[in-house]
Parts: sequence; structure tokens; C-alpha cells
Amino acid sequence: MSLAMNKEELSQYLTQVFPQVHKDFVIMELTNDTITMRLVVEDRHLRPGGTVSGPSMFGLADVCVYSMVLARKGRQSLAVTTSSSMDFLRKPAGGADMIAKCRLLKLGRTLAVGDVLMYSEGHDAPVARASLTYSLPPEGSAAAAFG
Amino acid sequence: MSLAMNKEELSQYLTQVFPQVHKDFVIMELTNDTITMRLVVEDRHLRPGGTVSGPSMFGLADVCVYSMVLARKGRQSLAVTTSSSMDFLRKPAGGADMIAKCRLLKLGRTLAVGDVLMYSEGHDAPVARASLTYSLPPEGSAAAAFG
Amino acid sequence: MSLAMNKEELSQYLTQVFPQVHKDFVIMELTNDTITMRLVVEDRHLRPGGTVSGPSMFGLADVCVYSMVLARKGRQSLAVTTSSSMDFLRKPAGGADMIAKCRLLKLGRTLAVGDVLMYSEGHDAPVARASLTYSLPPEGSAAAAFG
Amino acid sequence: MSLAMNKEELSQYLTQVFPQVHKDFVIMELTNDTITMRLVVEDRHLRPGGTVSGPSMFGLADVCVYSMVLARKGRQSLAVTTSSSMDFLRKPAGGADMIAKCRLLKLGRTLAVGDVLMYSEGHDAPVARASLTYSLPPEGSAAAAFG
Repeated sequence: MSLAMNKEELSQYLTQVFPQVHKDFVIMELTNDTITMRLVVEDRHLRPGGTVSGPSMFGLADVCVYSMVLARKGRQSLAVTTSSSMDFLRKPAGGADMIAKCRLLKLGRTLAVGDVLMYSEGHDAPVARASLTYSLPPEGSAAAAFG
Repeated sequence: MSLAMNKEELSQYLTQVFPQVHKDFVIMELTNDTITMRLVVEDRHLRPGGTVSGPSMFGLADVCVYSMVLARKGRQSLAVTTSSSMDFLRKPAGGADMIAKCRLLKLGRTLAVGDVLMYSEGHDAPVARASLTYSLPPEGSAAAAFG
Repeated sequence: MSLAMNKEELSQYLTQVFPQVHKDFVIMELTNDTITMRLVVEDRHLRPGGTVSGPSMFGLADVCVYSMVLARKGRQSLAVTTSSSMDFLRKPAGGADMIAKCRLLKLGRTLAVGDVLMYSEGHDAPVARASLTYSLPPEGSAAAAFG
Repeated sequence: MSLAMNKEELSQYLTQVFPQVHKDFVIMELTNDTITMRLVVEDRHLRPGGTVSGPSMFGLADVCVYSMVLARKGRQSLAVTTSSSMDFLRKPAGGADMIAKCRLLKLGRTLAVGDVLMYSEGHDAPVARASLTYSLPPEGSAAAAFG
């Protein structure tokens, strides 16, 4: 199975559907079953002390797997997040963007699963790990509607 | 074991340590091992369609368990989130604040665990479930430093 | 919505479908959205040191939520586990059965979610926490088939 | 940092500490931060229908990450599992052993984290994904004692 959207089409689509946040996220690389995204870190993503906040990392992981599913299923897909788990491994480096590398582990008829490793740019050891499950709308229906 | 801070002391402390976000969160009730908090939903918490975003719910659950640990351990506590899991159960109601009810399941020497149910105010069925683990700094040390 | 099977019908059904393990599990109480089950602890459930093993606790939580879903959906239901998370909170007491208390948090068209607290019998503090998600087969189909 | 035990030393040690189950698990490969293990599937690992049970997969993932931590920390290490998450992706193939591939994501002073992909031998698509956190005993103490 191949991509329904390439990197440029996917970027353009995210700009349309996430007008508030699309500037935070940049697609760096897209293959059939992996995607790499950058979180352009701004003040609003930081906690006191200057490190990237937990909710910002959650948001990055969520957008990353969601984008991977979209790239395969196409823009009519209305996937909704149903489960997630995250492990926070190290303190993010100050002043560095976050790079997220996602693998698509399953793309079924009704469920999709991906996992993500997140890094402070320029550092080798991962800052956080996440896995997320999405419910996919049945063919022809309007939305996944939380299963 | 009893509370190291009561509701008013805890509210005041959160105002100091989270100057950017403290207005989003209101402590509604605090007991020895439960806390109930409100997320005052603003536009920045919403996704297209008007529902509360995943990162906002993650943030609410995180602040909720963190505050519960603080209330017991006192303000010198520098707990850091190490693991989390969340299940998204239903679409949040539009135009409603989110209410989070946390139970403290464990408060050990080096780890604390709490779980949280989140509701759209005025609705009976939970919108999301979360559990979070915190690493606690050893007595006398400066910080938990991600274990 | 009410129960499709009562406690006796559910017990009998589990005996049929899990001939190898049904003696390990006893349903103690069943309501519309909660179930309490006992793991009758035998040598094969123990790790060196005499405490209940992680896989045994996972199995207990899994059977518990699965049974709750069955009780509501009826015996034609072919739910399969898709996601789980567990926190191990305390060392189980030696020589004690494990009691699991499950709440059904969601019973949707395609997904069901429950959470579980597990206790060593006679002790107040929970030994472990779990949450599990099940994929439900579409009406009329043979099985959920892992989404 | 390098291995405290090589593959043969680790195998021998597991035989000593897990007399009941060591025959189920075979270490296939060990590097500084990865381990590959085989679950030799027997009748007792199966559910009705002939597929490997959830508790058996949980046990495989747990032994896998635990062994990786042991290989690095040495045999005095008394790590205990504190958190886990699993996603069940596909039905395991009948009559095939399970192969688990673990990456060590963090080996800190008090916490270790690894993730695992599990496959039915001879098949490319993963059957399950897991991540596990271990609490490590402080230097010189007897045990991690669940944090």
C-alpha cells in the first residue's frame, strides 16, 4: 500500500485543518510507514526552567501519528485518538527544537497504531517515547466518533 | 499521613510556580488522597469543531496529579512526570469546562501514581481517563531529575 | 442499558470458553457497570519470593474487563484486547488471593474501555492499576479481528 | 557504558533466578542496548483458537526488558516493573514461536525504560508493542521495593 498524499500535499492539508497550530509543526521526511516532524519551539511550549512542556510533547506525538495516518488514508479520513501512552525519559535541552520520529505499526480497517521517539535537536538520546491509537471511521461514514 | 498544604496554600503556590497557566486551573476540592480541578476552557484549549484538545486534557490530568503530590509532599517537592497513559472515551461537550477527579493511588519514597477521570461539566459520562507516574527527588536532593 | 447475562450465566459461560483457566477466576459481584473478581492464587501464579507475577495480574485485569463487556454485550460478543496499560504499585501480600474491581468506562459501538484496581485480599492499598481497551465486532460480523 | 554480563552469563543467570520459566525464553542476540528473545510457545501459552495469550506476551515483554537491564546493571540488580503499556496489533500466527526485539531507551540511576516489538516467527508485521518501566534499587540497598 502506498501514500495517498506526498509530503507537500500533506503539509498543505495540515495548514488548512489546523490553522492555529500548523506553524508549530514541520514535516521533515515522509515514507510509506514513517514520518519525521519538527516542533518549532516557542515560548508558549515551555515550562518554567525553559524546557518543553509535557502537553507540547503530547501534542507533537499526536500530530505526528495523525499525519502519518492521513498520509496513508487520505484527506477524507477523520481519525480520532482513542488511547495513548508516553514515557518521559530525559529533560529536553533548552533552546532546541524537538524532532519526532514516528513508525506506523498498524493501519487496520478500524484502528491505526503508531509509536514515536522524540529528541531535542542535535542530541542522540531520546527525550520521550509515545504510542497512540486512532479509531478510523468505517468506509462511507462521516466520522470515527470515538468508537 | 495528612496534607502538607491545604486548598488555599496549594492554590497560592500553583500561582507562583505556573505564572503562565495558573488561571486555567481551579482547585475545587482537596482531601487526603483526592483532588478535583476545573479547566477553565478558553479558545486556546480548543480544536477545530470546538472540542477541548488532547494536549489540553493531558495538561489538565498532569497538573491535577502533580498538585495532589505537592499537597502531600509540600512545596519543596520537585516531582517530574515519568510515565502517563490516557484513554479518550467521548467527544467533550462544546462550551463546557472540564472537571478532573484525581485519586492518589501511591505515594512512595521515590514514585507517586495517580489516576484521573475527566468530565465535561454537567455531564455524567467521563470524556477521558488518565494515569500518571511521578519520580520524586530523594530526600535532601535538588530534584528528581528524570530518575 | 442493562446486563445481557447475570452473574450465574456469565460464570457458566466463562467455564465453557476458558476451560484451561476458568477455575482461577471467580466472579464475586456484578452490576450494570462494575464487576469484582477473585484470582484464586496457586503456585503457578507466583514469582520467586512468593508474590503474584506480573503476567498473572495482567491476566486477571484482562479477564475482568472482558467479562464485564461480555455481561453487557452477550455471548455472541467476540471482543479482542487492543490496548492496555498497567501500574504496579506495591508488592502483593504472600499467600493472599487477588481481588480485582473493574469499572466499565465506555461501551461504544466499536470500542469498550474499563479500568481495574487490584488488591491483595484483606489489604486496603491497591497492588496494581490497569486499563484495557477492547475492539468490538461490528454487528453481524464474525469477530473484531484486531480492528 | 558496556555490558555487565554477556549473552552466556545472562542466560545462565536467568536459569538460576527463574527456575519455573527459564525454558520458555531463549536469548537470541544481545548488544549494548538491544536484546532479542524467543518465546518457545507451548500449549500453556495459548488461548482457545491456538493463538498466544495476552499474559504470555506480557510475560515475554517483561522478561525481555528485565534481562536487558540485568545485562547492563549486573546480577545484583533487583529491578521491579513499575509501569507498562501494550498494544495488540494483529492475531499471532498459530504454531509459531514469538520473537521479541527490545531497545533500552533509558538506564538512569533510579529508573530504566525499554520498548519491545513482538513478532510471530517468520512474519514481518509486528503482533504487539510494549513499553515497560523499572524501578532500580539505590546503590547499596537491598531492593527497589516498588519505589
